[in-house]
Amino acid sequence: MSNASNANAGAGGKPKTAVTPTRADNYQEWYQQVIAAADLAENSPVRGCMVIKPWGYALWENIQHVLDGMFKATGHSNAYFPLFIPVSFLEKEAAHVEGFAKECAVVTHHRLELKDGKLVPAGELEEPLIVRPTSETIIGASFAKWVKSYRDLPLLINQWANVVRWEMRTRLFLRTAEFLWQEGHTAHATAPEAVDETMKMLGVYADFAENYMAMPVIPGEKTAGERFPGAVQTFSIEAMMQDHKALQAGTSHFLGQNFAKASDIKFLDDKNVLGHAWTTSWGVSTRLVGGLIMTHADDDGMICPPRLAPKHVVIMPIARKPEDRVKVLESANALAAELRAQLYDGTGVRVELDDRDIQGKRWHWVKKGVPLRIEIGLRDIEAGTVSLERRDQDTSAKTAIPRAELVATVGAILTAMQANLLARARAYQTENTRVIDTKEEFYAYFAEPAKKNANDPTPIHGGFALAHFNGDPALETKIKEDLKVTVRCVPLAPGEPGTCPFTGQPSAKRVVWAKSY
Amino acid sequence: MSNASNANAGAGGKPKTAVTPTRADNYQEWYQQVIAAADLAENSPVRGCMVIKPWGYALWENIQHVLDGMFKATGHSNAYFPLFIPVSFLEKEAAHVEGFAKECAVVTHHRLELKDGKLVPAGELEEPLIVRPTSETIIGASFAKWVKSYRDLPLLINQWANVVRWEMRTRLFLRTAEFLWQEGHTAHATAPEAVDETMKMLGVYADFAENYMAMPVIPGEKTAGERFPGAVQTFSIEAMMQDHKALQAGTSHFLGQNFAKASDIKFLDDKNVLGHAWTTSWGVSTRLVGGLIMTHADDDGMICPPRLAPKHVVIMPIARKPEDRVKVLESANALAAELRAQLYDGTGVRVELDDRDIQGKRWHWVKKGVPLRIEIGLRDIEAGTVSLERRDQDTSAKTAIPRAELVATVGAILTAMQANLLARARAYQTENTRVIDTKEEFYAYFAEPAKKNANDPTPIHGGFALAHFNGDPALETKIKEDLKVTVRCVPLAPGEPGTCPFTGQPSAKRVVWAKSY
Repeated sequence: MSNASNANAGAGGKPKTAVTPTRADNYQEWYQQVIAAADLAENSPVRGCMVIKPWGYALWENIQHVLDGMFKATGHSNAYFPLFIPVSFLEKEAAHVEGFAKECAVVTHHRLELKDGKLVPAGELEEPLIVRPTSETIIGASFAKWVKSYRDLPLLINQWANVVRWEMRTRLFLRTAEFLWQEGHTAHATAPEAVDETMKMLGVYADFAENYMAMPVIPGEKTAGERFPGAVQTFSIEAMMQDHKALQAGTSHFLGQNFAKASDIKFLDDKNVLGHAWTTSWGVSTRLVGGLIMTHADDDGMICPPRLAPKHVVIMPIARKPEDRVKVLESANALAAELRAQLYDGTGVRVELDDRDIQGKRWHWVKKGVPLRIEIGLRDIEAGTVSLERRDQDTSAKTAIPRAELVATVGAILTAMQANLLARARAYQTENTRVIDTKEEFYAYFAEPAKKNANDPTPIHGGFALAHFNGDPALETKIKEDLKVTVRCVPLAPGEPGTCPFTGQPSAKRVVWAKSY
Repeated sequence: MSNASNANAGAGGKPKTAVTPTRADNYQEWYQQVIAAADLAENSPVRGCMVIKPWGYALWENIQHVLDGMFKATGHSNAYFPLFIPVSFLEKEAAHVEGFAKECAVVTHHRLELKDGKLVPAGELEEPLIVRPTSETIIGASFAKWVKSYRDLPLLINQWANVVRWEMRTRLFLRTAEFLWQEGHTAHATAPEAVDETMKMLGVYADFAENYMAMPVIPGEKTAGERFPGAVQTFSIEAMMQDHKALQAGTSHFLGQNFAKASDIKFLDDKNVLGHAWTTSWGVSTRLVGGLIMTHADDDGMICPPRLAPKHVVIMPIARKPEDRVKVLESANALAAELRAQLYDGTGVRVELDDRDIQGKRWHWVKKGVPLRIEIGLRDIEAGTVSLERRDQDTSAKTAIPRAELVATVGAILTAMQANLLARARAYQTENTRVIDTKEEFYAYFAEPAKKNANDPTPIHGGFALAHFNGDPALETKIKEDLKVTVRCVPLAPGEPGTCPFTGQPSAKRVVWAKSY
């Protein structure tokens, strides 16, 4: 990934970057600083919960808008189910309760009362409620009422909602106690239909990640240890972040009849035989915004892929003398109108005109990652040009472009930028993926390099390893203990059989190993 | 409001209606049955929480879509704040805690543990959290960080979210423990600017209610007793339901500096003087869906105003003989495509083609309230016509209309239906509003008529009374105790001064009195 350098040289001869520290200096801190610099989100006073600020929320809105269209195009309807789940519902599926009981917000009272000048919980509930960590059990209760006959199937529902998992170590977007997501829940008459749905929605996620987020992903199946609690099979899309760790960016679960049995979702088939339905669930969350940042941002801040960018273009009028201001502003406004009338990706080009008289305006928009920055001054107006900068190119690279040409080609420029972001993310993933055939090379690949000193953060190293694996969960646990590396997925793409380098036993295909978020 | 009668005569000579009971027979039960018949929502196993089913949620999505555009057009940005509010935050504003502490979901633990084979709350929190009933205090904490200088103002934020108020008596859409809403929160440098914002958003709500929901409303100010806890002034839009009760359909609050002081939202003005900001908040909720039902639905079920209808048109192919089926279906599909290509209200006409081979299909769509129903059979195809029914007209009124004419005028027909719904709702409100000048007439107007027997529900009576009022809260309380009637609002529209009929004291203008939800 290109490390766009700031034209201004910083201290010690290093190019000065808009974000400090750089990715190379301290990746985790860089991530936090990009979020701050682009004004995407911040920690809230409530433990583990984030505030999603307007620029970050606009990214999420655009993600929602596209995915919602994809879900509807594949026959799903939105609905809404309760925030609260009675504890008795959670208990219905053994693996599920095991997976979620350890970290959930528990509501025990329904009012506050003044006692010795302090507000304390009062009105204890007969049965505690948990705030949904996921909604299989509460949606299952509705499905059980709605499904009577094979004619009611398939039932294809999606919900946009907030969920809560009481995570102890949180990180903005990637892991927060409360997050926003969508959860698809479907019920089918047969196992093959439910499996088809599971795979179809995994495909929707992969399509979205690559073609909208410009984030290449590997779709595959999770091993047993990484399965959703209660699922028969879990599939995911896995993306590579710029510290070479994997991000599980979306999951799709074939739930078999486990949840149908737990929730009593039964139907009469076309031969009038009563049986349990087959269900699926699938979800993506605000974690995707973290994925966008860690895929595209650089040492100067955020880079928004054009198809999801809150604004495609920012226009900055430059008036050196006050008497030029009216003329420049008029021209900038006219340009904004012309650009807004252009189509990109099925919608009008989203233009921000920033005529504030402040210092550091250009860097403000660099850090926010607007795809195209345009400056327009008196000399530009006279020459019939504008000064164009692309956020995926070096920040010192300005192009004077005829104004009419910009207007005519703005869609094509954005399309090219979107393609470039995907291509370079794909190249980055390829560069940092290694086919490995021996245990020694595997361990060496993932062994952490020495730190310069005790306070140094872990340097960026390793990546994705494509290695054979005999499928033994104990071996996977051992490798996780040794290296913090796990099987991210067994890719769906065809692969050749071979030999597990750890055991010498046969392996059906290579799997993807990596450290992960 | 027209009482569209079913052509089939029912038992006892009464026209049979698709919904039982009718509005006249038992209004409250009719409301529940319309919701069931149109498949809009249902009660959930969680006390007071509803499940919003796809047809009901689609109405809410359309409401969201339009309002979100209006908020953005008036300069607001969406953001997202935590679901949980620490109890100490709630305590910061005295009136606010008084208003909300009595009915809130309290989170006290962060996991569940098995104890004697039962899952019990564990991991007690140091400070309990409440699930937001409204977000002034938690958003205020962010605003305090974001606002430093007058240059940061105005700050114009909106949030789409779920909120929880532990209501003891709930009713689908109108009053539920959890509901969906939007809450706008803004901060301003001066009181007049905050008042302007308060009134502007009230205007947005009134515009939306009348022009999209086809629900006429009276915008006005609330009296002190009906004010939002912590507000300086509360404004609302009030609509009349078909039982003559008022529905408060949206509120906009001028909060003065109360919440800015509670949350410490301070800024340096342009003279470098530090002061507190002036804030507003405003919201509408899924209650609006209840308003749609109670404004438009009739004894045959829901009637969706075209601008918010999930589907504008349903096409039902009629094939009497199996061998006609292919031809009829082909023609129906072609018609669907032609209609979808037509514009209505800035979007393509939303068409459902229902080719299911089931009984009661036509009544299914009557009950769901799709604006236009079209039947097409072999004879229609030969004649070049279709059979058109409008949901706002008698269900026995079918029109044979040339197919080409339907396609060319579908947008105009929907526009006419939208206008008709608003006009008849407005006429209904006018018919049931009375100017009253004596205490005797006022009490007689609102006195409940005798029931036929003890089990009879309260018959529909009364309405809106426009009467003078001296503004005394004690008088308002007395009238509420006597009649369950309150001042719904002091209308914004100009009015003449007069004499309060209860006290003989002077009154600035007539106010709206009514029973209410």
